Amino acid sequence: MRRIFLYLSLPVWVVYGACNDGNQNRNIVHKELGLSLVFPTGDLITNDNFTGTAYLYSLVEGDSINGNSVGNVTFEPGARSKWHLHPAGQILLAIDGVGYYQEKGKTKVILRKGVAIKCPPNILHWHGASIDSPFVQIAITGREKGPTQWFDTVSEGEYNSAPTH
Amino acid sequence: MRRIFLYLSLPVWVVYGACNDGNQNRNIVHKELGLSLVFPTGDLITNDNFTGTAYLYSLVEGDSINGNSVGNVTFEPGARSKWHLHPAGQILLAIDGVGYYQEKGKTKVILRKGVAIKCPPNILHWHGASIDSPFVQIAITGREKGPTQWFDTVSEGEYNSAPTH
Repeated sequence: MRRIFLYLSLPVWVVYGACNDGNQNRNIVHKELGLSLVFPTGDLITNDNFTGTAYLYSLVEGDSINGNSVGNVTFEPGARSKWHLHPAGQILLAIDGVGYYQEKGKTKVILRKGVAIKCPPNILHWHGASIDSPFVQIAITGREKGPTQWFDTVSEGEYNSAPTH
Repeated sequence: MRRIFLYLSLPVWVVYGACNDGNQNRNIVHKELGLSLVFPTGDLITNDNFTGTAYLYSLVEGDSINGNSVGNVTFEPGARSKWHLHPAGQILLAIDGVGYYQEKGKTKVILRKGVAIKCPPNILHWHGASIDSPFVQIAITGREKGPTQWFDTVSEGEYNSAPTH
């Protein structure tokens, strides 16, 4: 993935995305999944914090001046994160497809294109694609109070639980 | 504009957007401008902080727990903000069309779909559509250090200045 950093005034970063030749192959994933492409699909997530196939395209890294990290995550159908929490909270923007979001002890919520979710700090939750549709989200995650903390895998029973529509 | 607030755990808000009947008329603007629709066009901006025609769809309001406000702004060709600054900085995500971004004393930058800009706190800047194309951006603005401060209108000379590509 090629990134061009333009230092307009430190630490401004301009990350070139959709017009990036190096992402053309990965963008095929979006077309295969029937998704419109706003941001490149990015890289396959290979850590064990996710179940199924998901991709991350990092847009902005948090730093000491602006603690927000922003990333575009593409989940193939059935893919989801583990249960986790963010010490400074998170905002999710549903960009395409159909996804799920659930906080511990609450009913699962269906996320459709155009929806925004505000997840409070230190609330255990998971998110991912629905059973039969991919899902694309922008995640805006404050890093100023520490990294994401990861917990258990989302079980099949939790994943398939009845949602709030 | 109808919003359904689901209090999953306070202050989580789920804002339903693209499937919202009340926005159908306003969404015609997107189609007329040849844009794909991720978020609804929202409301015409009627304050004097913008030149030309622009629309705001508010996705998330900042609060004491998460200071970030998130909004989707659609600029018609030639439309732009005044010069302004954000005490806690801002992140811009280019969603569709072609836009401009400029910091005071720097060369204007062209923003294309897929680009992210990290604007530092208290840096005077403006952004908007290019001369002949509309522009859609997501703005992520920290409110924890105070509101946006607005300054002069962007002159025709500044708006039409040569860009960095």
